[in-house]
Amino acid sequence: MLGTRLIVAALTALIAAGSAASGFAQSDDAAIARQLRDKALKDAWGWRFLETLTTTIGQRLAATEAEARAAAWAESELKKAGFENVHREVIAMPLWQRGREEASVIAPSPQRLIVTALGGSVATPPAGIDAEIVLFHLYSELLAATPGSLNGKIAVVTERMPRVMDGSSYGALNPIRRLGPSEAAKRGAVAYLHRSLGTDNHRLAHTGATNYEDDAPKIPAAALSNPDADQLERLAARGKVKLHLVLTPTTQENEQSWTVSGEIKGSATPDEIVLIGAHLDSWDLGTGAIDDGAGDAIVVGAARLIAGLKPHPKRTIRVVLFGAEEMNYAGPAYAKAHDADIPHIALAAESDFGARKIYSFLAPVGAAKTPFIRDLADTLSPLGIFLNAAPALNSGDDIAPLRAAGVPVIAMRQNGLDYFDIHHTADDTLDKIDPQELNQNIAAWAAMTYLAAQSQLDFRKLATDAPASAQR
Amino acid sequence: MLGTRLIVAALTALIAAGSAASGFAQSDDAAIARQLRDKALKDAWGWRFLETLTTTIGQRLAATEAEARAAAWAESELKKAGFENVHREVIAMPLWQRGREEASVIAPSPQRLIVTALGGSVATPPAGIDAEIVLFHLYSELLAATPGSLNGKIAVVTERMPRVMDGSSYGALNPIRRLGPSEAAKRGAVAYLHRSLGTDNHRLAHTGATNYEDDAPKIPAAALSNPDADQLERLAARGKVKLHLVLTPTTQENEQSWTVSGEIKGSATPDEIVLIGAHLDSWDLGTGAIDDGAGDAIVVGAARLIAGLKPHPKRTIRVVLFGAEEMNYAGPAYAKAHDADIPHIALAAESDFGARKIYSFLAPVGAAKTPFIRDLADTLSPLGIFLNAAPALNSGDDIAPLRAAGVPVIAMRQNGLDYFDIHHTADDTLDKIDPQELNQNIAAWAAMTYLAAQSQLDFRKLATDAPASAQR
Repeated sequence: MLGTRLIVAALTALIAAGSAASGFAQSDDAAIARQLRDKALKDAWGWRFLETLTTTIGQRLAATEAEARAAAWAESELKKAGFENVHREVIAMPLWQRGREEASVIAPSPQRLIVTALGGSVATPPAGIDAEIVLFHLYSELLAATPGSLNGKIAVVTERMPRVMDGSSYGALNPIRRLGPSEAAKRGAVAYLHRSLGTDNHRLAHTGATNYEDDAPKIPAAALSNPDADQLERLAARGKVKLHLVLTPTTQENEQSWTVSGEIKGSATPDEIVLIGAHLDSWDLGTGAIDDGAGDAIVVGAARLIAGLKPHPKRTIRVVLFGAEEMNYAGPAYAKAHDADIPHIALAAESDFGARKIYSFLAPVGAAKTPFIRDLADTLSPLGIFLNAAPALNSGDDIAPLRAAGVPVIAMRQNGLDYFDIHHTADDTLDKIDPQELNQNIAAWAAMTYLAAQSQLDFRKLATDAPASAQR
Repeated sequence: MLGTRLIVAALTALIAAGSAASGFAQSDDAAIARQLRDKALKDAWGWRFLETLTTTIGQRLAATEAEARAAAWAESELKKAGFENVHREVIAMPLWQRGREEASVIAPSPQRLIVTALGGSVATPPAGIDAEIVLFHLYSELLAATPGSLNGKIAVVTERMPRVMDGSSYGALNPIRRLGPSEAAKRGAVAYLHRSLGTDNHRLAHTGATNYEDDAPKIPAAALSNPDADQLERLAARGKVKLHLVLTPTTQENEQSWTVSGEIKGSATPDEIVLIGAHLDSWDLGTGAIDDGAGDAIVVGAARLIAGLKPHPKRTIRVVLFGAEEMNYAGPAYAKAHDADIPHIALAAESDFGARKIYSFLAPVGAAKTPFIRDLADTLSPLGIFLNAAPALNSGDDIAPLRAAGVPVIAMRQNGLDYFDIHHTADDTLDKIDPQELNQNIAAWAAMTYLAAQSQLDFRKLATDAPASAQR
């Protein structure tokens, strides 16, 4: 094993040296960024990384044995790819696991429904719940229902999620999944179902974490596939509908998830960090290709190309593959554990929206007119990427706590028109990834990360000094 | 109940009389065909029929209680729509029902696979089968394997089905599902899996009936979803793969399915029959919208408009909604029970390919240059339908035995480019139907059925007399 690792490390070093010698004229930051970009477009490494992760490990639900295997594998891959300070960091958390998920109409006419439990949902009794439904076409109608009005009922919300390119409808409708169960419980409901937060019409339900409020009973909660939500709407329009629902998820306390990271030590100001991240955990239904194996391949693939440069860029580049993102543990745990690092993180960015083409990017607040952004825009425009006039106010859930603590961020916007067809379903598999689109992402991230690490700009200072008009 | 029926019958008669008085100039067959066509395009009846069938009954697997309910409902609908001689005919058959279907990779790395049992498959032992796979990228490679070479193994065929407009790839690849299990068993396999006969990339496997041969052991057989077949290909390329497979379908002998039919008695030659059919049973996974609720809506919707004409067309129109098509019982049972009718069936046609637009039609053998076909082509061309130069050699599985017994057929060709994305999966639900495309079908079938029933052509004679060149 060690022998193989040494050989691989030696080969990696040779390839890197060869690349640097043959390709990169290091006199000009933008020229190097362009060379990284063009090299990434022809590089099969990212695809192979993603193919191996999704094939040999597959699903990697937070705190499962599979996620631990993924973390060990990623650690080994980062070492092989030439990163320094490669290590795993533990995240203490419970392990929630799906059980049986059966739903059916028992009246007026028996038929099976496709549902999947929301992450964190409590179980029904083993024999299930039989109850009439109260169906709300809009979530606001549930919120308008009076306490007691859902006593003994299964609340069903069938509001549809609009298909939009930037995925913003997901954020807007997220309370349906996150808060719906407690809102229904406060009004007396014994269980909660909602139309999947998804834009497809397949019989595959979209899971996702829910959050119970302390002041409401915890009731079992699941998502319906979109065609099944349609079916309930049609049945409810005809009269009373009674369902049978069985969900038997379990929760084990005191388990652990892992965040894996590695660095490319800066050559001039190594204490300044450009942090790029993605998350390594996935939901259990698919193999986590778009969410977020793609992001892992993008940030590792991009940084790996930079790791081959001699000298390294001025600032340190840190790649972080977060564990337990889907269960909302990763970001807060990381920000807490790395509290002392926060003032040193010059810029952060996350890739967690699949692998469709990047079409625009948002500069850090106040940075739109800096040489860094000018160079970056010039480098990315041949990839079909333009500079959006809005500043980057966020860049991913895992770095949101860093952002909240004052870390400037940059955001790469991907075409998400079909992202929510697949997101959090069994359909999240490798075949949904286009290798060329993946490489366009890696190319853009390689250029962005390199230029950010070469820049000496203090983005915090820009953010503070920028006039309000620039912050829109 | 009787009161309601009388009121409905009276209303139907009134509407029909109104239509005849206001719309139809009966001097010209083609003019009436055009009026039927245009009326169908604006008629919501077919959609409502399909919506009600798929919503209030849903799946209707042959010989289940749900199929019996569908047959009773259809009988009532045909009566309400003004058909005569409406009745059900029994088909004796066993009831095959799906049980648990669980598949997983147990080595090299545990992961779940999506499979669905083939119709008619035997069960595994309740604890399942654990065995290594032998993976064939092509079915021909399985056929080339020597006896004994698969001893104790699970045979896996991952050949891909091409996406084509007329669906002909399905017929070509059908032996993979129909004959694969016995071919694998003859070579020693203990179970058989194949890539779904489907053109999608969703985690939904495509079921369908298989046929065991008498001279081979019966082994459990299931289809893999296409992404799961991809995954097994990638894993098998890395080394040995061991699976766990549980299928627990059951078969009950001496059950029954139902075929429902009704007629529009001919006004001049009532003993000559134009038979139009579709099948009422469906697979159990979806709600049978494209397969074949759409066909039911199309043929019943078309004939219903003709039933409103006074006088009726010259020949009798018989609408047949076959039971147990998916299990291959309907066609043979019908041909046997109606042996005496066969010489009287002037022409037959079946709609069993979803509800996408019809783009061409194939004339009965030898009929391409007859006035009937000329009128029909003229009537259909505004719908974007052209006369294909090839003669109709078949028109659906249920009428194949009639065709084999000498009944001439006509074929309406639908755009099937996405049909096999959905066919035989849980995704076969109402949302996959476009109401306007459904109406284009009903319009074409109404015109075709009317003109065929008005025609006095003896298609059998044409078929016999036609020169060989016309039969291509």
